[in-house]
Amino acid sequence: MTQYKYLLDEKDLPTRWYNVMADLPSPVPPPIHPVTHEPIGPEALAPLFPMALIQQEVSTDRYIDIPDEVLEAYKLYRPSPLHRAHRLERALDTPAHIYYKYEGVSPAGSHKPNTALAQAYYNKQAGINKLTTETGAGQWGSALAMGCAFFGLELKVYMVKVSYHQKPYRRVMMETWGAQVVASPTSDTHAGRAILEQDPESPGSLGIAISEASEDAATKDDTNYSLGSVLNHVLLHQTVVGQEAMKQMEMAGDYPDVVIGCIGGGSNYAGLCLPFMRDRLVGGKSTRFVAAEPEACPTVTRGEYAYDFGDTAGTTPLMQMHTLGHTFVPPGIHAGGLRYHGMAPIISKLCADGHIEARAYHQNAAFQAALQFARSEGIIPAPETAHAIRAAVDEALAAREAGEQRVILFNFSGHGLLDLAAYEAFLTGKLEDYAYPAEMVKEAMAGIPKID
Amino acid sequence: MTQYKYLLDEKDLPTRWYNVMADLPSPVPPPIHPVTHEPIGPEALAPLFPMALIQQEVSTDRYIDIPDEVLEAYKLYRPSPLHRAHRLERALDTPAHIYYKYEGVSPAGSHKPNTALAQAYYNKQAGINKLTTETGAGQWGSALAMGCAFFGLELKVYMVKVSYHQKPYRRVMMETWGAQVVASPTSDTHAGRAILEQDPESPGSLGIAISEASEDAATKDDTNYSLGSVLNHVLLHQTVVGQEAMKQMEMAGDYPDVVIGCIGGGSNYAGLCLPFMRDRLVGGKSTRFVAAEPEACPTVTRGEYAYDFGDTAGTTPLMQMHTLGHTFVPPGIHAGGLRYHGMAPIISKLCADGHIEARAYHQNAAFQAALQFARSEGIIPAPETAHAIRAAVDEALAAREAGEQRVILFNFSGHGLLDLAAYEAFLTGKLEDYAYPAEMVKEAMAGIPKID
Repeated sequence: MTQYKYLLDEKDLPTRWYNVMADLPSPVPPPIHPVTHEPIGPEALAPLFPMALIQQEVSTDRYIDIPDEVLEAYKLYRPSPLHRAHRLERALDTPAHIYYKYEGVSPAGSHKPNTALAQAYYNKQAGINKLTTETGAGQWGSALAMGCAFFGLELKVYMVKVSYHQKPYRRVMMETWGAQVVASPTSDTHAGRAILEQDPESPGSLGIAISEASEDAATKDDTNYSLGSVLNHVLLHQTVVGQEAMKQMEMAGDYPDVVIGCIGGGSNYAGLCLPFMRDRLVGGKSTRFVAAEPEACPTVTRGEYAYDFGDTAGTTPLMQMHTLGHTFVPPGIHAGGLRYHGMAPIISKLCADGHIEARAYHQNAAFQAALQFARSEGIIPAPETAHAIRAAVDEALAAREAGEQRVILFNFSGHGLLDLAAYEAFLTGKLEDYAYPAEMVKEAMAGIPKID
Repeated sequence: MTQYKYLLDEKDLPTRWYNVMADLPSPVPPPIHPVTHEPIGPEALAPLFPMALIQQEVSTDRYIDIPDEVLEAYKLYRPSPLHRAHRLERALDTPAHIYYKYEGVSPAGSHKPNTALAQAYYNKQAGINKLTTETGAGQWGSALAMGCAFFGLELKVYMVKVSYHQKPYRRVMMETWGAQVVASPTSDTHAGRAILEQDPESPGSLGIAISEASEDAATKDDTNYSLGSVLNHVLLHQTVVGQEAMKQMEMAGDYPDVVIGCIGGGSNYAGLCLPFMRDRLVGGKSTRFVAAEPEACPTVTRGEYAYDFGDTAGTTPLMQMHTLGHTFVPPGIHAGGLRYHGMAPIISKLCADGHIEARAYHQNAAFQAALQFARSEGIIPAPETAHAIRAAVDEALAAREAGEQRVILFNFSGHGLLDLAAYEAFLTGKLEDYAYPAEMVKEAMAGIPKID
């Protein structure tokens, strides 16, 4: 009997997060102070994050126990299913076995709650009553809103103004879970007021929203800040995804030849790939790792591996990562979660060391694959996920070409039920393929700080 | 260890649908011809439905095998999980055990694909190339669009014009799966043209859309019509829900004292309740069955149990059912799936015989319960499901009052990610509680045909 889904019981939920730091042949360069260029200590992060998360940020322990309270919250939607895409395989007439880990089963519709729940919990434990964060398209803000509802925290979300007005349903979702959502820039912060003075009609940007949310948190004792990707502890929390997938691939009797995901800040792909990466780094496996990014924001394929700021305003510590320059503002592709100038330092290091191969896709190519997926497997993918599907379909076609039964695994990071405007644009031929913005990138890359 | 979800393997998927006709103490009155008032034969339905579905419509066999091809398609999302709502129980401080069967896991977000897939399959088997249907809010149209994509059928959806413009994302969802969606009334049919001649600005209605879709199918050899609720074969297909839930309740070590669902046409509630109803009808169980409907369209609580038309135009055979009169147009509540003047003959019969108790709720009361659910269990409910949650919460509070550990099971028919405008209205205090439209109902009920 054909099996389509591999399910785990709640008792098989991973009880520890996996920390790849313990298995890297050489360490990820540490964050440094923007002026002294000295490695920063934990105290530099204390105004923003609780100590438990700062410790995870710098930990080299291979495994870190997941608190019971977080496990209980995970159980509302985890373990997530692993699907074998039999119908897509037939549509592609490929001998490849295509598997996808489906993270869209979370109530927020994506992998983001895996870290939102953990971050809300640790902040609550530390006596924090309120969190602030930024959100662009809204996937992260909505996941954190749910996390804060569960652990009894207030949340203020600085939502990029243009998204606030374009995506009212994401805002309503956050409000349904009890969060306060404001259109950034606001007059609530120095950073916001400074922008509004210069340009009262500013549409906002992720960089501005980060500045506002972190200023808000840094200036209040009972308030912390929360980030949804890039940082080590965020990637750590996502490793439940890959640990589950390893057990499920074993149930399916297959091991991936290639592990695929989309990358924006890097957290969903890290979640799936890092546990499998361990088998490559210390287990001698020759699995390939492929990360899909947008041609409009090709951080790894075209960026520099250098120390740069995490935010546009240039106020964070410097992190060594692939970057297009911290002032780069990507074109308005629908995959809002992939519009980031930098990349998680862990993913960047693995790319730089040749363990991960990055590929860039135009959004029409991504949506074409997403549409084929929706019509064969049913689920309508998020625009971000569409990039991973494009890469998976290309791998499956290459396997057909080679006549080889390759095993392909990708992370289905989220569904697209709140992104249907993008499908309408695609179906009516109105979806733009932004050319690689070479001039803008050149200009932004000139602003990357020079480190000796 | 606390368990939150009860999962079945694909091998535990029910292989037969359960037909309650075999176990009813007295038969459901047959549909009759609108003029002769004689019971209609299968040939009367042949222009619209394939013979396999007509046979199911009149079958008294207790079980009907599910075709392999339908089972394979079910496996994309079934078996669906049964959740124990531990967090909601704590929020309500109730000794009750609250369980919900979560049908929102289907790619269309509701239970509707359970019959859409079966109907698409049987039509394809019968050599039909194209289906037509109507849709209001779009849940049914999108489920059938997915079903037609899987089985290679074309689909034309007559979407009520006011919804077509108010709910563009539901339309895009259908188009993503390849369906053609038109705003009804159209100039494509006699029925549509007649309406447009009288009123070029007609906003449309479900009744008009049914007339258009069925005329389109009746006048073309390779085209059939498909209905998403009310009819016996539709309720039959939904019984996979209750059969799974019975196994899952056994895994949980509980048996429901009360089984709850919302009713519009009756199919989602029938799906959950009919397999449990068998235990009451022939197994001597005293389980209570509670059906929740909107105060704005209180078909069972205020309607007459009488022969009436299924459509507004009065062209279908007459069915004995609870009805508010076939010309009744319910106020514009957000639970579009509950805005139907009639009720499935099977559900009506069980209500009339005292096996099911109906309750009516205002939409603010329903959304209040839905919000509490979202903030404790995470999932944001569809407005229809919110009515079932209201009834479940009331039962849980009654159990607290009585100090009894009652077991409550309800059908979580669908998520509300495409209904967030309704949450915005509720959160901002703008959601209207339409008073029971007594005068309109009185007028419509005067139009119920008189049968000797």
